[in-house]
Amino acid sequence: MDHETIARFVEDARVGRLATVGADGRPHAVPVCFVMLESTVYSAVDHKPKRSRRLRRIANIEATRHACLLLDEYTEDWTALWWVRLDGSARVVAASSSEEARAVAALVRKYPQYVLSPPDGPVLALDVTRSVGWSAS
Amino acid sequence: MDHETIARFVEDARVGRLATVGADGRPHAVPVCFVMLESTVYSAVDHKPKRSRRLRRIANIEATRHACLLLDEYTEDWTALWWVRLDGSARVVAASSSEEARAVAALVRKYPQYVLSPPDGPVLALDVTRSVGWSAS
Repeated sequence: MDHETIARFVEDARVGRLATVGADGRPHAVPVCFVMLESTVYSAVDHKPKRSRRLRRIANIEATRHACLLLDEYTEDWTALWWVRLDGSARVVAASSSEEARAVAALVRKYPQYVLSPPDGPVLALDVTRSVGWSAS
Repeated sequence: MDHETIARFVEDARVGRLATVGADGRPHAVPVCFVMLESTVYSAVDHKPKRSRRLRRIANIEATRHACLLLDEYTEDWTALWWVRLDGSARVVAASSSEEARAVAALVRKYPQYVLSPPDGPVLALDVTRSVGWSAS
């Protein structure tokens, strides 16, 4: 899959699945709303109810920084399947930084759901070092 | 989320995202068609075009065995969001074993797409040790 096609899927995707790895070497995966600015993917811990803001994805990122974001859309027509995977290094964006403000603004622009209730939890950044894509046809 | 609800989501889901970890500690994630029999999730490397049958997910499983399967369905109505995560230990099912035959038969029953072209690549098993689920409402 060429870079333009990957960029278009990333632009259009409404959800991604973020995989991280804990200090114990075990993977964790969670669906996230995200936005990509330049080569960084931002997602936020938002108001969707959680047991805690101290989430496994954050502990994992702090422990190992390894992460990837998978984009795909399932359809019963298997000739139309595709996926894009963004590999990189993840970090928690500094609270109240200009980077955090810029990421939150971009998330609110992309997701009207955030307009009334902007995310106020930590913002996660995935600095993408490699993008790969596959499509069935 | 209670066990019955988790079981229902697992039964109904048509796709999952399989996260594994390589010997280098980096995560990998890929969408998979799957079926769950008792407490094991089976997926197959099938005819969907791949660069190689020697896939990263297989190398990762052989290296670390750590894996999880994430199920979720995105919707713009964020009050309807949910996910289920199945954590466990993964392995490649022995070729031509009765376990492989049983898994392939179950995959073919679940996915009509496999009827004409049953998967003939390696079958992966995720022996689930923990199931967790979340829903927004």
